[in-house]
Amino acid sequence: MATQSYKKLVEHYQSIDNFEHLRAICSWDQATFMPSGGADSRAEAMAELAVHLHKLHTAPHLAELFELAKDENLDTTQQASVKEMHRTWQLQTVLPAELVKAKSLAGAKCEHQWRIQRQENDWHGFLKNFEPVVALSQEEAQIRASSSRMTPYDAMLDIYEPGMCSTQLNQLFGDVATWLPQMIQTAAQDYSPNHTAQYPVEQQELLAHELMALLGFNFNHGRLDTSVHPFCGGTSQDTRITTRYGESEFVNAMMGVIHETGHACYEQNLPQSLAKLPVGKARSMAIHESQSLFYEMQIARSPEFIALLSDRASHYFPKYAAINKTQNLIAQLQRVEPSLIRVDADEVTYPAHVILRYEIERDLINGDIQSKDIPQLWDLKMSQLLGISTKDNYKDGCMQDIHWTDGSFGYFPSYTLGAMYAAQFKHTMAKTINIPQQINSRDLKPIYDWLNTQIWQKASLLSTQDLMVQATGTGLDVSIFKSHLQHRYCKA
Amino acid sequence: MATQSYKKLVEHYQSIDNFEHLRAICSWDQATFMPSGGADSRAEAMAELAVHLHKLHTAPHLAELFELAKDENLDTTQQASVKEMHRTWQLQTVLPAELVKAKSLAGAKCEHQWRIQRQENDWHGFLKNFEPVVALSQEEAQIRASSSRMTPYDAMLDIYEPGMCSTQLNQLFGDVATWLPQMIQTAAQDYSPNHTAQYPVEQQELLAHELMALLGFNFNHGRLDTSVHPFCGGTSQDTRITTRYGESEFVNAMMGVIHETGHACYEQNLPQSLAKLPVGKARSMAIHESQSLFYEMQIARSPEFIALLSDRASHYFPKYAAINKTQNLIAQLQRVEPSLIRVDADEVTYPAHVILRYEIERDLINGDIQSKDIPQLWDLKMSQLLGISTKDNYKDGCMQDIHWTDGSFGYFPSYTLGAMYAAQFKHTMAKTINIPQQINSRDLKPIYDWLNTQIWQKASLLSTQDLMVQATGTGLDVSIFKSHLQHRYCKA
Ligand SMILES: [Zn+2]
Ligand SMILES: [Zn+2]
Repeated sequence: MATQSYKKLVEHYQSIDNFEHLRAICSWDQATFMPSGGADSRAEAMAELAVHLHKLHTAPHLAELFELAKDENLDTTQQASVKEMHRTWQLQTVLPAELVKAKSLAGAKCEHQWRIQRQENDWHGFLKNFEPVVALSQEEAQIRASSSRMTPYDAMLDIYEPGMCSTQLNQLFGDVATWLPQMIQTAAQDYSPNHTAQYPVEQQELLAHELMALLGFNFNHGRLDTSVHPFCGGTSQDTRITTRYGESEFVNAMMGVIHETGHACYEQNLPQSLAKLPVGKARSMAIHESQSLFYEMQIARSPEFIALLSDRASHYFPKYAAINKTQNLIAQLQRVEPSLIRVDADEVTYPAHVILRYEIERDLINGDIQSKDIPQLWDLKMSQLLGISTKDNYKDGCMQDIHWTDGSFGYFPSYTLGAMYAAQFKHTMAKTINIPQQINSRDLKPIYDWLNTQIWQKASLLSTQDLMVQATGTGLDVSIFKSHLQHRYCKA
Repeated sequence: MATQSYKKLVEHYQSIDNFEHLRAICSWDQATFMPSGGADSRAEAMAELAVHLHKLHTAPHLAELFELAKDENLDTTQQASVKEMHRTWQLQTVLPAELVKAKSLAGAKCEHQWRIQRQENDWHGFLKNFEPVVALSQEEAQIRASSSRMTPYDAMLDIYEPGMCSTQLNQLFGDVATWLPQMIQTAAQDYSPNHTAQYPVEQQELLAHELMALLGFNFNHGRLDTSVHPFCGGTSQDTRITTRYGESEFVNAMMGVIHETGHACYEQNLPQSLAKLPVGKARSMAIHESQSLFYEMQIARSPEFIALLSDRASHYFPKYAAINKTQNLIAQLQRVEPSLIRVDADEVTYPAHVILRYEIERDLINGDIQSKDIPQLWDLKMSQLLGISTKDNYKDGCMQDIHWTDGSFGYFPSYTLGAMYAAQFKHTMAKTINIPQQINSRDLKPIYDWLNTQIWQKASLLSTQDLMVQATGTGLDVSIFKSHLQHRYCKA
């Protein structure tokens, strides 16, 4: 048969996906319902599963199947499918097992101690564990680079954002860095809530479910639960999102829900015929983030949606209708204010946090700077981009994120690339859909139908570049992101 | 090293247990939180896991390891451990793969169609699917029997209740059958609730949690959730029980919770040093059931506990304090009434349902009767034991249970054996612990400490016979069960 090897590959990756399914559900359980006493045995079971998955990913017969599949008579989808399987296989097999193990151990130790060291602002203690993580990550980057003719950092970036490179990022982020500090100054506005309120969690949950339904979340194939750190997990047939509620405030929980709903709708609408194959998965981290940020930033922070949110809030929290009138929620949701912490940053200052991290991790992985240089560079770049000093404040400076502690270098750019892609999707969509009017009439179907057709159904069938060109007519255009920010935040 | 093969066996069975952990959590999720649209992909993932577990259980190198371990210098615990591993291995490897597959397919088909056929009282439709299940189960029983010098039925019984045989069951159940019908007549009492009430589920959950805590459930290592069919699942480090609430009534949900708490306390208190090995698991189905029935029947249906329940009910449902006074709850919880359905039966009539099923499945598997004979035998035995006819009523007669549909012959005796073991544990415990007084003072610790020492901590280190003798001084003694029933139900 002409597609025999291809079929064997399909079976193998479907089998992998079945085990990934078990991992996804047990991870979700770990973050939501597992009693704390279950942690040790769960960790053991998950470690066993990880070993098994690694065996499947590096099964010796795959090399030959990929060779044989090359000569088979495959259609376009099958070719794209083999390409993504092969990419997965390369990512998994290129590193020597000892390096994977050494990095995993160093990363676990660094992350574990970081949880205490960060609280204690203990940079020097952290540095001792961090330097081996960087050294092993550099080794990883060099091995990945040598098999792919990229720079070391680009080889790491490629894990999360295939097709992206630092030449393009330097250009994109360099552009942003020329106008962002001025824009932040123009847009900056204080916002301080001057009231106390009590929003019952049960009511917040009802509102969250209503918003999810409005945004197209399919409850027959997913759930909303609570966890300390909100996430989107589960599988594409059973997508589990979480949020975190506070009683004094409901807007943050709702924005979290809306953000994760964007991730979830992407997952839920991936093509079911390819569901268990690498080609049937989301295109990249940045495209994934573009969907959550489309929902959160392009839709939910628009004046029309904020008016809708205000109306629904008055229904669920009638006592605080006056506090939650549209103009107050706009003041809260469209505030701009330079601050130390990335995860709390607003839409305008967020890219500054990402650019700073990108420049440092790029130079670190390429060996152009050393770990010990980071605090000084952090302080310098924070001052340049946001006008804030982090001198001697490691806790709220270079020690604030978990990403680097286990060597996940190359991930940070996804956040701001996602914001840029989202702005570009919105820009194109607005040519054929009256988005404000759809929001006002509470019919978001044309909006998520567009995303479904242009992005969700495409899965990994196209490269990010081709996906963008087919959806928007052009590759990533940073000027659209700039216009979006100007339009929303620089009205005066 | 003198224990090298033993250590390899330990590693192998620990690895199996890690995958069983994933299965337990994903099964729990399937019954509690999974959205219905997730069912298909979950079924695929679970099937993949079952295949993988079967591979591990039948790994070719195990035979040699068991041979080598025989000559190793093992202590008593290690010897018991090898024995249980070997038992697990034999159960898994003795059947040819084609038979396992054929039975699984026939069973799935029979069970699937039974769900409709039962509703439609369609015995003849059911019989078509059931006959192949019986034929394959007979084949299974013969293969199991031939490797162990048992009768075919005893070989099936041995899966669930190692050490038990039909000679002993004939004697035990034969004894019961001589006095039970008369006792049922003596004890029979109508109970019909003559009020309407509304018990909010949130309050029932609070009461359930309080009762679980009282009974020694460790919430750091477990949870209570809801599902259509109550069960005890999860792992011994993370034990998940479920119940089902109705708003018009709270007693059944609480009895379900107490029953599953009995199962859960056994699981939670298995020796952690052996947690992942066959020898560290619960001894048998009947011993497991003895723990849930100890809690439900010996403790929770005692007058002292019912008084306690009445008091707590008046706290959580003050509106219905009069309805739930002790004497009313006793009338409900100690009612005796012959009825058609096993799962709704009371403590006195329940053994009749089990004896009937035992006699039929024994003769069926041994080839002494045929499937088509079942309805007539059912009607006959129901008349003899309970004085009720099931003529032409297959739905509430021989088609009421799920057990036979997939060929789980040999399981039914566990229920009544469990009730007998429970009565015997209580009888012994009462010699050193004033159980009524402990319940009155709401301190059940001495009770579950006794169970912990005598049963839970023993796991599968002893045979059921040795466990009984060590705990109670004698093997199973049916007269204790009889006395218990007489004492509680034949006071007049
Ligand atoms: Zn996100
Ligand atoms: Zn039970």
